[in-house]
Amino acid sequence: MKIENPNPIQWRFSERADQLQSSFIREILKITQQPEIISFAGGLPSPLTFPVDEMKAAFDKVLSENGKVALQYGPTDGYLPLRQWIADSLSTNGARIVPEQVLMTSGSQQALDLLGKVLIDEGSRVLVETPSYLGALQAFSVYRPEFKSVATDEHGLVPSSLDAVAEGARLLYALPNFQNPTGRTLSVERRLELVETCARLGLPLIEDDPYGALSYKGDPLPKMVAMNPEGVIYMGSFSKVLTPGIRLGYVVAPLPLVRRLELAKQAADLHTSQLTQMVVHEVIKDGFLGRHIPKIRALYGDQCQVMLDAMAQHFPAGVEWTKPEGGMFIWVTLPKHIDAMKLLDEAIAQKVAFVPGSPFYANEPETNTLRLSFVTVAPDRIRTGIEILGKLIAAKI
Amino acid sequence: MKIENPNPIQWRFSERADQLQSSFIREILKITQQPEIISFAGGLPSPLTFPVDEMKAAFDKVLSENGKVALQYGPTDGYLPLRQWIADSLSTNGARIVPEQVLMTSGSQQALDLLGKVLIDEGSRVLVETPSYLGALQAFSVYRPEFKSVATDEHGLVPSSLDAVAEGARLLYALPNFQNPTGRTLSVERRLELVETCARLGLPLIEDDPYGALSYKGDPLPKMVAMNPEGVIYMGSFSKVLTPGIRLGYVVAPLPLVRRLELAKQAADLHTSQLTQMVVHEVIKDGFLGRHIPKIRALYGDQCQVMLDAMAQHFPAGVEWTKPEGGMFIWVTLPKHIDAMKLLDEAIAQKVAFVPGSPFYANEPETNTLRLSFVTVAPDRIRTGIEILGKLIAAKI
Repeated sequence: MKIENPNPIQWRFSERADQLQSSFIREILKITQQPEIISFAGGLPSPLTFPVDEMKAAFDKVLSENGKVALQYGPTDGYLPLRQWIADSLSTNGARIVPEQVLMTSGSQQALDLLGKVLIDEGSRVLVETPSYLGALQAFSVYRPEFKSVATDEHGLVPSSLDAVAEGARLLYALPNFQNPTGRTLSVERRLELVETCARLGLPLIEDDPYGALSYKGDPLPKMVAMNPEGVIYMGSFSKVLTPGIRLGYVVAPLPLVRRLELAKQAADLHTSQLTQMVVHEVIKDGFLGRHIPKIRALYGDQCQVMLDAMAQHFPAGVEWTKPEGGMFIWVTLPKHIDAMKLLDEAIAQKVAFVPGSPFYANEPETNTLRLSFVTVAPDRIRTGIEILGKLIAAKI
Repeated sequence: MKIENPNPIQWRFSERADQLQSSFIREILKITQQPEIISFAGGLPSPLTFPVDEMKAAFDKVLSENGKVALQYGPTDGYLPLRQWIADSLSTNGARIVPEQVLMTSGSQQALDLLGKVLIDEGSRVLVETPSYLGALQAFSVYRPEFKSVATDEHGLVPSSLDAVAEGARLLYALPNFQNPTGRTLSVERRLELVETCARLGLPLIEDDPYGALSYKGDPLPKMVAMNPEGVIYMGSFSKVLTPGIRLGYVVAPLPLVRRLELAKQAADLHTSQLTQMVVHEVIKDGFLGRHIPKIRALYGDQCQVMLDAMAQHFPAGVEWTKPEGGMFIWVTLPKHIDAMKLLDEAIAQKVAFVPGSPFYANEPETNTLRLSFVTVAPDRIRTGIEILGKLIAAKI
């Protein structure tokens, strides 16, 4: 019952479809998945930290006690007890966040897509850090903005540089804690200055915070959303503190915006799995994260130190790198004449991989930069890989 | 540490955000969730059909045997064994579908969003049935197309009416089996004619098929994707044959299109839960659906017959309705002068609810139509509700 010799379709895609590019990182990951490669390219959390038994017990409990509800369609905004938990956890430093401000999303990548959908027209100015998170650049690009890179220094984003570029901008996207890709943290003083500047300019500030809980030393710094809940949009995720495969994130926004985001989500995928939300709430409601997160911090913190020590030993003079106080990444700046993309080819030939820095820049890339992740590589292999990289770099100086 | 007296943000939303409207059905559902209301308004499957025990056992097995993989980030296109299962199940009538053509989505609503994103520019012509599925109108509307309603009759979409409206159209969206909202089924002859016409016109044809397996009598009719795999885009879902709360659907498309959809999905939410996909594959891989779906068919088929019998008894002359051979909905056409929206107010006052037909029309609505669902209401209450509706209608004739 097939039709005979149909005309082939001449596909005509939307203009925005032409903006779509595969993440360079995902392409590198395909190359570097062979086990013999020492890969610092990953952005994946360590599966050693996944609380499989707790998740299994929670799935069993939720399905046993409340299966018919968990498996039915649910509300677009999300499972109320979990939204309440999130609102409470963010109501710090005198700020009051209510559950009505919380929209559950299918991973925090979806929050980026919904924010782009609701805030960006073709040609809208969008401000991002230099460099910025690749997944955000990808998500926003679909809506065809004009990106403007905001200056950063070793303390992160420079608030005083905003006035020159904020005219007509729809949003500023920032990742203040252990930024991906640089590992940098924005100081408390800078946070206050940034929130004040954005409020003065009437500029919506997105605070993306997937790594905030993963600080290796001391308490996390105050969140910007608590400094101005009416002007800051907060994004959080369970990917780095529980597991990423369940795809559960959230966005917290002022009410006029969150209602639009909810409508956009309804059209995009109706709602996020009710079962997953109930399970995560079951796992975390009695303080599990307070016991679990210190274990992740210890593992990542130790491996970060191993990598920093190895870099100090093996990297030649003229190379600089960040010293993260949390998160998953170290950012390396090579002497200007060294192209990290070419270095990657040589490194892969010697079974070591990393991510060149260029794809993280919205505007002019700095081709002498690269990102290293230490979280999924055992200490011995970290030392071996860094030694190989150090020799390759030294040969170019 | 809050900043003092910040300026309130003057929100500036994207033009597409102004297209966003809450689903009228979701609004009605909020009103009609009180248990004393006999609601024919729902589009939810019956929780009596959810295989909770099988799902629980599969979550336990997958997490026990493969937890670290299931809980890690996964590939954007989806879990290969499940994509293979889907490709095999669609390779009927001599057609060959390969797993590379299958993209897993977060419910089939997400497939609609991705198709809109990749195929629709502002002002693009999009062809839909009269009436059409509300969720598709919602998803596509975000991308601001010009909708053209294609003529239908009691056998569904009329292929010969396409030539007049197909010029420059980006796609035709059709729901051939037990359509939402009308319950109509497109005959085999019409399917062939439609596929041939679209192939001749070079018009991509979307075959949305959430209810295809839920036929009450006889075998399902041949799928249009099998008649021309290079010109038909097929959408499927596990929501109506397993459970909707897990949010798992899929789209099957020719390779040039599916690669674009995959890139759009990567930017939209990276990937759909690997755990959920592994669990669904575990549940269905050994023929479970072959035993389970007949139970759903029997339950829905019986309740459909109860409703049809009650309508024949209680609805006055001058009212017409469809006699579905599967699915979840009956479509009622009242005499022209009766406004279903006003009838709804009166019905709710008497504790009965339904969905007026107007929101299902992309262009001129027929205000004398309404949709009834029989799947979540027990037979006694179906009879009571239909009797009340019949009296309300009779009073207007």
